[in-house]
Amino acid sequence: MPIEAVEDVLWAYRDRIRDLAGDKRFRYILVFKNQGQAAGATVEHSHSQIIALPIVPKRAKEEVEGAKKYYDYKERCAFCDIIQQEINQGVRMVSENHEFIAICPYAPRFPFETWILPKRHTHDYQVNSKNMIEGLALILSDTLKRLNRVLDTPPYNFILHTAPVNYLDTSRYYHWHMEIIPKLTRVAGFEWGSGFYINPTPPEESAKFLREAKI
Amino acid sequence: MPIEAVEDVLWAYRDRIRDLAGDKRFRYILVFKNQGQAAGATVEHSHSQIIALPIVPKRAKEEVEGAKKYYDYKERCAFCDIIQQEINQGVRMVSENHEFIAICPYAPRFPFETWILPKRHTHDYQVNSKNMIEGLALILSDTLKRLNRVLDTPPYNFILHTAPVNYLDTSRYYHWHMEIIPKLTRVAGFEWGSGFYINPTPPEESAKFLREAKI
Repeated sequence: MPIEAVEDVLWAYRDRIRDLAGDKRFRYILVFKNQGQAAGATVEHSHSQIIALPIVPKRAKEEVEGAKKYYDYKERCAFCDIIQQEINQGVRMVSENHEFIAICPYAPRFPFETWILPKRHTHDYQVNSKNMIEGLALILSDTLKRLNRVLDTPPYNFILHTAPVNYLDTSRYYHWHMEIIPKLTRVAGFEWGSGFYINPTPPEESAKFLREAKI
Repeated sequence: MPIEAVEDVLWAYRDRIRDLAGDKRFRYILVFKNQGQAAGATVEHSHSQIIALPIVPKRAKEEVEGAKKYYDYKERCAFCDIIQQEINQGVRMVSENHEFIAICPYAPRFPFETWILPKRHTHDYQVNSKNMIEGLALILSDTLKRLNRVLDTPPYNFILHTAPVNYLDTSRYYHWHMEIIPKLTRVAGFEWGSGFYINPTPPEESAKFLREAKI
């Protein structure tokens, strides 16, 4: 899609989240995309989905509470620290622009798992400005092209992780971001039994492949 | 497999768990089986796997801590209460014998998710007696035949949930059991983002199909 069309999609996420957040029954607005049958897509054309939930779901809660614990201990945002460290070390960097970085996170669950984070601390996708949407469209489009090139158009899920709505004030310690998970391995008994993930590909290796991809 | 061969497999689980639990570095011994490619099996012949972990993994810890919370509140084992309620209501029962019941649990994550639980309170698979292994072999074999008949030999995972080893005393509140998950639906963005599961099949319906299967 041309960048302007990607921007339109990202604005649509913002507008739909904003609208649903106005309904005080909701606590979390989940935006995600399933691409390809193996990633659970049931409609053939490219599409995102949005689901508003009356409670903060388990995974989001664990992430928010983990971020709070770190903040209480360090008085800094965990995601800001990750961003600083990844920029300094460089080995897990995929790309960056003025507003965002794309990285293969330290200890990822899946091969080629890639996160996109805004460099400036912002807990909530809703407060996105025009600059940020432009930067996000560029880096998201770039990252997906790299994944398609390196992994031959893999099925994937991406999930927008943003602050809960009508909830505690998470603005100091939470930091919105996107997580992209290509579906290359299968979740089996070990993962279901443990909640742990066996990942044969180090993030430094995935990041190198993605960084060096010719797109 | 003939019942005696299933018993041999179940004794092998017990013996291997017992042996690994003797190593004081370990905190959890995870036994599971992946059947079929979609369930993550990488070897074609039927096989189980055992993995010993130096910490109690996330999922096991959540289950053990949930059971403790219930025990602290009710002074009863949550699983014993489930067993009693399922036997009384009958609608989610798949089968039972002297020692075990097979049920489709209340609020399952997946269609046709089926649990096998020992009727007598026992936290640890290691203390299994001859009677119990015989009863377990019968109900496990029966349950898998029913799943194969109703779902046309589906891929599945089964996971043995047993007490952590070299850990706190969980004997009063934990209750070992097996969870069988046929792979009929795909885990996609919603599940990854939320930790919640969309299941289109009520357990009362799966249980009825399994109960009435001609095997």
